[in-house]
Amino acid sequence: MNIRPLGDRVVLKKLEAEETTKSGIVLPGAAKEKPQEAEIVAVGPGGVIDGKEIKMEVKVGDKVIISKYSGTEVKYNGEEYTIVKQEDILAIVE
Amino acid sequence: MNIRPLGDRVVLKKLEAEETTKSGIVLPGAAKEKPQEAEIVAVGPGGVIDGKEIKMEVKVGDKVIISKYSGTEVKYNGEEYTIVKQEDILAIVE
Amino acid sequence: MNIRPLGDRVVLKKLEAEETTKSGIVLPGAAKEKPQEAEIVAVGPGGVIDGKEIKMEVKVGDKVIISKYSGTEVKYNGEEYTIVKQEDILAIVE
Amino acid sequence: MNIRPLGDRVVLKKLEAEETTKSGIVLPGAAKEKPQEAEIVAVGPGGVIDGKEIKMEVKVGDKVIISKYSGTEVKYNGEEYTIVKQEDILAIVE
Amino acid sequence: MNIRPLGDRVVLKKLEAEETTKSGIVLPGAAKEKPQEAEIVAVGPGGVIDGKEIKMEVKVGDKVIISKYSGTEVKYNGEEYTIVKQEDILAIVE
Amino acid sequence: MNIRPLGDRVVLKKLEAEETTKSGIVLPGAAKEKPQEAEIVAVGPGGVIDGKEIKMEVKVGDKVIISKYSGTEVKYNGEEYTIVKQEDILAIVE
Amino acid sequence: MNIRPLGDRVVLKKLEAEETTKSGIVLPGAAKEKPQEAEIVAVGPGGVIDGKEIKMEVKVGDKVIISKYSGTEVKYNGEEYTIVKQEDILAIVE
Repeated sequence: MNIRPLGDRVVLKKLEAEETTKSGIVLPGAAKEKPQEAEIVAVGPGGVIDGKEIKMEVKVGDKVIISKYSGTEVKYNGEEYTIVKQEDILAIVE
Repeated sequence: MNIRPLGDRVVLKKLEAEETTKSGIVLPGAAKEKPQEAEIVAVGPGGVIDGKEIKMEVKVGDKVIISKYSGTEVKYNGEEYTIVKQEDILAIVE
Repeated sequence: MNIRPLGDRVVLKKLEAEETTKSGIVLPGAAKEKPQEAEIVAVGPGGVIDGKEIKMEVKVGDKVIISKYSGTEVKYNGEEYTIVKQEDILAIVE
Repeated sequence: MNIRPLGDRVVLKKLEAEETTKSGIVLPGAAKEKPQEAEIVAVGPGGVIDGKEIKMEVKVGDKVIISKYSGTEVKYNGEEYTIVKQEDILAIVE
Repeated sequence: MNIRPLGDRVVLKKLEAEETTKSGIVLPGAAKEKPQEAEIVAVGPGGVIDGKEIKMEVKVGDKVIISKYSGTEVKYNGEEYTIVKQEDILAIVE
Repeated sequence: MNIRPLGDRVVLKKLEAEETTKSGIVLPGAAKEKPQEAEIVAVGPGGVIDGKEIKMEVKVGDKVIISKYSGTEVKYNGEEYTIVKQEDILAIVE
Repeated sequence: MNIRPLGDRVVLKKLEAEETTKSGIVLPGAAKEKPQEAEIVAVGPGGVIDGKEIKMEVKVGDKVIISKYSGTEVKYNGEEYTIVKQEDILAIVE
């Protein structure tokens, strides 16, 4: 991966969303309605951002949940990525 | 529960709202009008968020009241959750 | 009262407004136009909120005036309450 | 006066505006266009408000000028008052 | 002058604008399009405003330029004044 | 020049924009679309502005680039000037 | 290059975007939809900006990704540049 995010930014690769009901039926068409699951592919160095010390709490390979409205879509070498600030990551999925 | 919220975030499971009048009549249809009761299923570690020390005051199992407009809806393994910042929790119901 | 507000929040029970003119005529229909009188039924612990120390200046039983636009309406056990931050309380009526 | 404002708030009683031209003609109908003159009837204690020390510079009986858009209208015991923060008072008229 | 501005506020009397082209033709009708020249008639004491020390840099009698959108129009004793914060004064004309 | 800007403000005289393509054709009509080149004619003293120490980095005679949307247009003695804060100056042209 | 950016600003020259799919087909028309790749041609000195110490992390020659909505377009000597604050640079492409 040769995109190196600056500051407290993180580069994500969105995961294909499969919507599964309790009874096991897959509803791929509903994927657009959901916040996004994504995998982290690059993590910025953190440091002093806007006058505040930011420590990076996530690492490459983490699967995370972000709001579907956060971040900037980037297309690089024919692949789509999303770049968000760490504070836009809601949770880590384990 | 394998969603681990970051920072001062909290994962909630909304409780089915039953609207009961003083005389005991249940009005489920009115549920949409109300702020939401929810149960906490995961709590972030707190720490320094946006330059300010945040101590988590809530714990897993607490029943809380949130404004119906706060937080982000998340669907995970076929279940719906809401992720809010602790400051969006108005009160604990005991 | 078993709603325990967090931080600098206060739970209020709104008082029935009676609008009385100087000559003593009661105008209940005009009540909607007025900021609200309310009685405090629960007070949060205060503490460090958003990086600032907040000391609670009000107590259960105080009658207060709030702007009619502030706070969140909550329905709990068939009763309606309003939850506001202490800073949204304009004055105490003695 | 039994309304006790909190923090840096001040309770005002608006003065009847009389618009007088240089030649002495009174134009009461123009009163609505003007920022308001008011007399202070109660002053909060000041103190630390939103993390900043506020010292009250006005006192009961001061006649002041406020912008006509600032503050909250309050009706109490059949009288109308305006509650503003001290910073919304533009000037004292002596 | 018996209007005493509070904090970092300044009372101004707007100067009649005369628009003069390079060739000396006076265009009074164009005055409305311009930021305003004004003369300072009263200056607040400065001090700690919103948690920051403000030192007053202007004095009574200074002719200044303000944006035409800043400040509050005040009519007092049949005269019109403008009350602005010192930071809304763009420059002193010497 | 007898306009003395306050604080971190700078008085600019906009330069006539000539739009020249690579092949040398002048397109003056396109000038409106461009951020503005301007020459500094007066510089404020800097100092503590809004609680922060501002050091002036520009001087009279500097040619600078500003966004076309920043600053306030001023007409003084028949000449048009623009007053901006130093932070609205994007770059110095050397 | 004789544009010297002030503070934490950076001057960029946008790179011609070529959109290439995985199979190698070039789609230049899609270029408008993408955040922009650009090369840095000048870097400001950093320092204390708006009360916060900013250290410049990028250098002339770096290829970077910015959001397509950030920065100010500048035309200088017939060439188009974009001036952004360093915080608007999302990532460095290596």
